[in-house]
Amino acid sequence: MELSIVLGVGFLALVVAAILAKWVLAQDQGPESMRKISGAIRQGAEAYLHRQNLTIAKIAIPLAMMIYLLYGFVREPNIHDPAGKGALALWTTLSFSLGAICSLIAGFVGMWISIRSNVRTAAAARTSLNGALQAALRGGAVSGLLVVGMSLLGVGGLYAVAKAMDATVKATQIPLLIVGYGFGASLVALFAQVGGGIYTKAADVGADLVGKVEAGIPEDDPRNPAVIADLVGDNVGDCAGRGADLFESTAAENIGAMILAASLGELVKASAALKGVVVSDETVIGFMLFPLVARAFGIVASILGLFFTKIREDQDPMTGLNRGYYVTSALAAVGFFVATQWLVKPICAASGNADAWMKYFYCGLIGIVTAQAFVYITQYYTEYKYRPVREIAEASLTGPATNIISGIAVGLESSLFPVLTVSAAIVSSYLLGNSAIDGGGLFGTAVATMGMLGTAGYILAMDTFGPITDNAGGIVEMSSQPEDVRKRTDRLDAVGNTTKALTKGYAVGSAALAAFLLFSAYLDEVRHYGATFVGVNLADPKVFVGGLLGAMLVFYFSSLTIRAVGRAAKQVIEAVRVQFAPFRDQNGELHLPEKFEPDYKAVVDIVTKGALRQMVWPGIIVVAMPIAVGLVFKEIGKALGESGLGAQVVAGFLMVGTIAGILMALFLNNAGGAWDNAKKYIETGAHGGKRSDPHKAAVVGDTVGDPFKDTAGPSLHVLIKLLSTITLVLAPLFL
Amino acid sequence: MELSIVLGVGFLALVVAAILAKWVLAQDQGPESMRKISGAIRQGAEAYLHRQNLTIAKIAIPLAMMIYLLYGFVREPNIHDPAGKGALALWTTLSFSLGAICSLIAGFVGMWISIRSNVRTAAAARTSLNGALQAALRGGAVSGLLVVGMSLLGVGGLYAVAKAMDATVKATQIPLLIVGYGFGASLVALFAQVGGGIYTKAADVGADLVGKVEAGIPEDDPRNPAVIADLVGDNVGDCAGRGADLFESTAAENIGAMILAASLGELVKASAALKGVVVSDETVIGFMLFPLVARAFGIVASILGLFFTKIREDQDPMTGLNRGYYVTSALAAVGFFVATQWLVKPICAASGNADAWMKYFYCGLIGIVTAQAFVYITQYYTEYKYRPVREIAEASLTGPATNIISGIAVGLESSLFPVLTVSAAIVSSYLLGNSAIDGGGLFGTAVATMGMLGTAGYILAMDTFGPITDNAGGIVEMSSQPEDVRKRTDRLDAVGNTTKALTKGYAVGSAALAAFLLFSAYLDEVRHYGATFVGVNLADPKVFVGGLLGAMLVFYFSSLTIRAVGRAAKQVIEAVRVQFAPFRDQNGELHLPEKFEPDYKAVVDIVTKGALRQMVWPGIIVVAMPIAVGLVFKEIGKALGESGLGAQVVAGFLMVGTIAGILMALFLNNAGGAWDNAKKYIETGAHGGKRSDPHKAAVVGDTVGDPFKDTAGPSLHVLIKLLSTITLVLAPLFL
Repeated sequence: MELSIVLGVGFLALVVAAILAKWVLAQDQGPESMRKISGAIRQGAEAYLHRQNLTIAKIAIPLAMMIYLLYGFVREPNIHDPAGKGALALWTTLSFSLGAICSLIAGFVGMWISIRSNVRTAAAARTSLNGALQAALRGGAVSGLLVVGMSLLGVGGLYAVAKAMDATVKATQIPLLIVGYGFGASLVALFAQVGGGIYTKAADVGADLVGKVEAGIPEDDPRNPAVIADLVGDNVGDCAGRGADLFESTAAENIGAMILAASLGELVKASAALKGVVVSDETVIGFMLFPLVARAFGIVASILGLFFTKIREDQDPMTGLNRGYYVTSALAAVGFFVATQWLVKPICAASGNADAWMKYFYCGLIGIVTAQAFVYITQYYTEYKYRPVREIAEASLTGPATNIISGIAVGLESSLFPVLTVSAAIVSSYLLGNSAIDGGGLFGTAVATMGMLGTAGYILAMDTFGPITDNAGGIVEMSSQPEDVRKRTDRLDAVGNTTKALTKGYAVGSAALAAFLLFSAYLDEVRHYGATFVGVNLADPKVFVGGLLGAMLVFYFSSLTIRAVGRAAKQVIEAVRVQFAPFRDQNGELHLPEKFEPDYKAVVDIVTKGALRQMVWPGIIVVAMPIAVGLVFKEIGKALGESGLGAQVVAGFLMVGTIAGILMALFLNNAGGAWDNAKKYIETGAHGGKRSDPHKAAVVGDTVGDPFKDTAGPSLHVLIKLLSTITLVLAPLFL
Repeated sequence: MELSIVLGVGFLALVVAAILAKWVLAQDQGPESMRKISGAIRQGAEAYLHRQNLTIAKIAIPLAMMIYLLYGFVREPNIHDPAGKGALALWTTLSFSLGAICSLIAGFVGMWISIRSNVRTAAAARTSLNGALQAALRGGAVSGLLVVGMSLLGVGGLYAVAKAMDATVKATQIPLLIVGYGFGASLVALFAQVGGGIYTKAADVGADLVGKVEAGIPEDDPRNPAVIADLVGDNVGDCAGRGADLFESTAAENIGAMILAASLGELVKASAALKGVVVSDETVIGFMLFPLVARAFGIVASILGLFFTKIREDQDPMTGLNRGYYVTSALAAVGFFVATQWLVKPICAASGNADAWMKYFYCGLIGIVTAQAFVYITQYYTEYKYRPVREIAEASLTGPATNIISGIAVGLESSLFPVLTVSAAIVSSYLLGNSAIDGGGLFGTAVATMGMLGTAGYILAMDTFGPITDNAGGIVEMSSQPEDVRKRTDRLDAVGNTTKALTKGYAVGSAALAAFLLFSAYLDEVRHYGATFVGVNLADPKVFVGGLLGAMLVFYFSSLTIRAVGRAAKQVIEAVRVQFAPFRDQNGELHLPEKFEPDYKAVVDIVTKGALRQMVWPGIIVVAMPIAVGLVFKEIGKALGESGLGAQVVAGFLMVGTIAGILMALFLNNAGGAWDNAKKYIETGAHGGKRSDPHKAAVVGDTVGDPFKDTAGPSLHVLIKLLSTITLVLAPLFL
């Protein structure tokens, strides 16, 4: 029953996505001028993603083989293994590969539909705002539903197959067998987000510096050879990257929550048996499947929410999106209520207090409220209605240096409320869960995470909406449409900027909660293997050093990704200069003909190569460092006679790395968003308006913020989760 | 015997400082024009420090009363208390007050001698480079020796008095009684560093923006009303702040190491007794006094090293300083050898292996080598001979935005090698110590810290040398001295910049090692009180939240201090604009008369008020947050029936906060230093040289780096240690 719902809803999400895709593709593609630009974007994006996926395959396939060899031949089998040596090696490798492939598909489809929705949104904007909104949102919904549907089908499907094949002695051990799925997904997500993030910002920064600043031509001017690369970037960075990111979030969270539920279920069963109460296996398995069922209900809520987003022609598009989000949140809460009562109540009853299930429902509500709180806090720090952005705009009056100082201060400050919110959510859901079932506190925090991620489908649709409208605006601009069409796409673009910023806040918040869930699962797994350590003792110098190294990885990784953007942007600038060179007179003045048709493809190729080259090292270091730390300290532990030291030091590495990653991501995302909007605020006429000195200062801040908020920040979300999933998969190696 | 050496050397350091001060004061003060400027600086610095100390007193006195009330009346006495209720309250309050007062004196004297050495250095530079070097270095040495001497006398003296009065049952409990000394010292250091740091950079940034950028007059032009405030800033920020900082480092490290040594000594004694071996109390007490004796020998080494710094007229001044440093390091190693053999060997013998003392000597060597490594790494990241600074300079070719992006990437990257170095030092000294005495691993890391801090006296002298030469250069410039005099002070100033950067690297490195020592001491203290928790379990959600909050404090605090500089600088700019207003013509062009005598005092007053106002909130939040976390989680622990939860969560807060603080300080210090030198590199003629566009871009980076490297970064060193000392003092409250 539980499994049928899970697989059924997963399938339903794919069907709805297909219907929406069919609808989008049936829309008018507009005049030839639009289709030509859209075609160039499509070509560039597809070529990039094709090569990116080849590069990822070159890394993922050897890694899959290594995992197989390590489990099948190097590692000594352990009596606690969920399956025999060969079977464990096979299942781990298979689930890793499946996760990686699904993540690639999620990214690819996100990009595929986005580069087809953009021109249709632009075409619809010629007549109607709501028409354009629908085209963009439904395009986004295709990607959103596909991601959450595939994530659910993947985990549910792997579980169903493993169960049908009797792969483990006990069904509750299956989640340990399929942890590779999350690792595969997050590995691909990391490379996709880093590569796409470098691509999009290198093209953006390069195009701006060489076009707006050097040549003095407007943004999105078709004579700028880098302008198509810039539009391609929105698709491969924001769509493909974020799609892979949220795919792995939901997949990893599902598996982690199942591991926790399984171990809590077994615990309740065992202690009930001592009191003479028999708990059936079905009850425990139902409880273990609760995370999947709750997610399935959340997907249904997201689908229904998407139908509530119509707007009238004179309405603010954000109103429509907000209405849909509230509906989704409310329906998700109802679904949570049903799922909790159905699957959690029996376990609560077995532990002695049937009514305690309500407390887990409250934990879910805490998650839903936390998601809302993150959305508000992000708005406060990045919208120009509020103090922080105003402060940066005012600091621009005394030049770029004070603009930067002020933006960095705002970014660093912006960690305050999110951390307080997450802290409150973790502690309160832990206390609630603990008071419901003895030892059920960690599961309480897991339920809060489920609540937060319940609306992921809708959020992802809103997020993909951003780059689609951004692209539509670019197409309208480049094909020289009339003023009122531009106004419509500008309105949608402004909303898209907001939704992009909000989903970034949501992504950090959920990463923070999910991380705690995942390393609880890691510790459960380690304990399952009979490790003797009772916790992660940071007062032990070796564990402390692990933590220090974890935090350092965050700083070093941020440095690599930020620098990569600078390097690739420089190549863009040089490539454009070559194309402009024939039009410079003896004094170096540029005289660009009105009809100049640049070689877009040359720049697209250069950014593609640059981004792919720069993405490899940051990706490898993230994978290699936790492995190295685990293996080195395993040996030190052997020398000292401390068993399990490797696993414990890795846990310290993971947890402190996660904390540093959350804070750094908040800093980078919010500083970048605030700089962006400080510039936009000045462009509304404040402090001298466009082309004034303060505006120039604000442009510097905006450019600095670009790699912060669209490359390093989002890559850190994935890094946090990759650290969790890699340790989850490789835990047996560190013991 | 041990105590006589300690008190004798402490006294000797003060005597040598007095002799050097007398020598400095006897030097020629140069012509009237120099003395006039020096007088204005002196007046401003003394007025600021006077008011700063009043403000600090207003915070410290109520805090002292609060500590007394909490210990004397609120808190329930514990059978593990080192003394009765009233005595414990009195000793804690007294040692806190004494630490605070000594720290105030250390800061004051540092400033006092610095504002007197600057003019004498300037005067000496008229005839001889070595003469100027000696005046500046001896001025710095007065401050350095006074700080380390007072720190040793304070801890040793408090111990001696407590022992003479039989304040505790056992002499090994005395360190627990006087932990307040470190807290008092670091509280004052925090305010002094934050206030002084804001002062110096607000004046610097404000003077640059309004003078160089707006009015187009050179740096240190006497017509700039903010120029005296800028020179005052060097004294109150760099001298007074750093003096208080290193004073509390050495004091807190001494007490922490004594606590660890006492508990290890008692442990060895107890286990020897089981084997029938009697260890005398004298042996244990001698072992406990080992940190003080090792420090005393280090001070002697520093005094001797200072005599090896003569240079020939044609030599690079850095050669002389380096020679002195090598001599100091070598002598400190010898002293360490003697102290270890004398006081550690008996304990090793009692634990079964007398030869193991050599291993602790090696731990000390690890500390000395770590100090050297930090100096080299800092040079690599901040000198323009190397790749990082070159990279920033090159990025300036495409404008301020890429300069900032590149600088931030370099700053973030610069955490890599320092973290690897500290990690290697902690793990190797732990393993060495552990193999010497069973359970002696933590003491091994403590000994490495002692090794690192052994040369603190010499390092501090080199550090204070920086602002003195900086000021001397300003005085020479403002009093229009001939070209060759300027050249001499420029050479010294360049060396001063290097020594300032190096000592910052040293300060972070020693803070990282000392922090681990201090929280080991904290855990020892907590265990001494019989808390039931075995470690700091980061896998517990409450402890994890503590860690999250600790890291957040670092980000939030950095934001506050960086923003404070921006705010105070804005006030400077406005004040200067008022003074320039009468000289602007109708078109707003500035026509400043050659002989314009601005009102320096008005600007000095404004910076003073601004800095003092901005220093209060960051200081209070650092003190209040750990207390709040400890008390809240103590209550949650009571509700959950988990004893000692408050103390454990505070430990998580402290440790993760420390890790975040180390990384953030490295980022801020090194990014700031690299930006500064990228500008200087361009000024040597690279990439177009002075007044080119890349130079303008580099000036933006330099300005952004100012509050990073001279306000937020150094304040974080103090923050890290304040967190340790505050938890050490208040631990009994959280239990």
